[in-house]
Amino acid sequence: MFYFLDLFGTAVFALSGVLAAKEKRLDWYGGLVLALVTAIGGGTFRDLVLGRVPVFWINDNVYIWIALATGVLSFPFLSKIIVNRWLLWSDAFGLGLFTVIGCQIAIDSGMSATVAILMGVATGTFGGMIRDILCGQAPFILKQEIYATASILGGVLYWIFAEELDQEWVGMILCISVVTLLRILAIEKNWRLPKLNN
Amino acid sequence: MFYFLDLFGTAVFALSGVLAAKEKRLDWYGGLVLALVTAIGGGTFRDLVLGRVPVFWINDNVYIWIALATGVLSFPFLSKIIVNRWLLWSDAFGLGLFTVIGCQIAIDSGMSATVAILMGVATGTFGGMIRDILCGQAPFILKQEIYATASILGGVLYWIFAEELDQEWVGMILCISVVTLLRILAIEKNWRLPKLNN
Amino acid sequence: MFYFLDLFGTAVFALSGVLAAKEKRLDWYGGLVLALVTAIGGGTFRDLVLGRVPVFWINDNVYIWIALATGVLSFPFLSKIIVNRWLLWSDAFGLGLFTVIGCQIAIDSGMSATVAILMGVATGTFGGMIRDILCGQAPFILKQEIYATASILGGVLYWIFAEELDQEWVGMILCISVVTLLRILAIEKNWRLPKLNN
Repeated sequence: MFYFLDLFGTAVFALSGVLAAKEKRLDWYGGLVLALVTAIGGGTFRDLVLGRVPVFWINDNVYIWIALATGVLSFPFLSKIIVNRWLLWSDAFGLGLFTVIGCQIAIDSGMSATVAILMGVATGTFGGMIRDILCGQAPFILKQEIYATASILGGVLYWIFAEELDQEWVGMILCISVVTLLRILAIEKNWRLPKLNN
Repeated sequence: MFYFLDLFGTAVFALSGVLAAKEKRLDWYGGLVLALVTAIGGGTFRDLVLGRVPVFWINDNVYIWIALATGVLSFPFLSKIIVNRWLLWSDAFGLGLFTVIGCQIAIDSGMSATVAILMGVATGTFGGMIRDILCGQAPFILKQEIYATASILGGVLYWIFAEELDQEWVGMILCISVVTLLRILAIEKNWRLPKLNN
Repeated sequence: MFYFLDLFGTAVFALSGVLAAKEKRLDWYGGLVLALVTAIGGGTFRDLVLGRVPVFWINDNVYIWIALATGVLSFPFLSKIIVNRWLLWSDAFGLGLFTVIGCQIAIDSGMSATVAILMGVATGTFGGMIRDILCGQAPFILKQEIYATASILGGVLYWIFAEELDQEWVGMILCISVVTLLRILAIEKNWRLPKLNN
């Protein structure tokens, strides 16, 4: 079941890559590259710095195929897809999911709380950062949104429950719920982190 | 012989880095960094995700020296170098060559067709993408050219001949020829991939 | 003692990340990301290409904490911090220090002079390059400053003394002094490398 959720998160992130590519007027290849990068970029960074190589999508190509299929299948409908609540909420859910996965993998590799939470945030947000850089702009999560902040909080919760209290499933459900909810609230209420130069 | 072709491809890609640096009014150091990055960036990514570390240029420094020498030797003539057909055709040939090398290395590491073709494209195109990002702009291959598309087609052909039909040399020659030809045709005929927002 | 110098260099580089984030009007999270990336980005690249994984900050989290603490502690004073000489000189010293560390690690891994000097420059300058890219601009060291050049010269000196003459401590002190001094002179005298398109 968790594996299927993971593939769902991959598809949602891939779609956000395609939509960014459309907005920047990229071509079909650009759309597929951004789909791939957004979906697997964060996990790739995590695996590289942890030394888990070959990285995850090398041995299990299904992540590549999900991202590419999401791209190709979305192309005919791109003019009709609007970034509505369902899409934003799915993305929020994907963020929570990827945070858990990143934390979990770090913990399984025997990492400290610091590294586990960092790997959670990295898995959840680095794909989107590379997507933005490839679009020729500074990553949006660095300047205007409660996005990574939600992921960090979720990572802390997951660490406390999974590692300190030995309640892995509680940690997973709590982390995903809190990240998703906090992110949705941030969108609805237009919450922002303070800027540095105030 | 193949090794010398590889070094030729390295020099051609390095030159494309220097020319981008010149256009962006970078200084000598910027020219050398872009020469290096364009020439060895794709192979570095490939080696990192496959877990082939230290990466290829660490143990065989000749790639670094070829790229740096291309940079230094081109500096006095930069005002005279024009991006003519010879240069574009050499770049097309380099793309075909790097595609074969990327595929080959992945196949030798026992990878699937998906990964092999992906590593071919990555070896051929990621150096140029990093070059463009370092120039402060979105990578041009994501928006306006038949470039990666040629590399993908070449990779598919190479996989079919080298792995399915056990005709490695036929695959190599076919892949390089088709990529080079398709790329040249795309330049001459001004072929483009469709944009996403049509 | 050297370890403490290393942590000092980490803090100085982190501060330069926060200041870039402030200038670009990023938020708190953006400030912390740029602090981290500037401080540990170069060493991360070095460790990845050399195959030294998990990378250095995974096993010794103090680098992460120093960078994050520098960020958080600087936030309340950001409107008062001015980029004065002390800051620029500290950064110059950090560059010299990181150059030595990069060279040293490469030499300890049995690398050639070419790779050692390259790893010195990478450790000293790649964090700042990623910082600039995340700010949405071309890295400043590619276009207008004697920065990497000082690091290269320092790396050459370190190699000669540490490896050829077996005088590691002389090499260290010489490298750090020359890099720092050359960088300070470049700032004071406004020295620049020639641009490519002259």
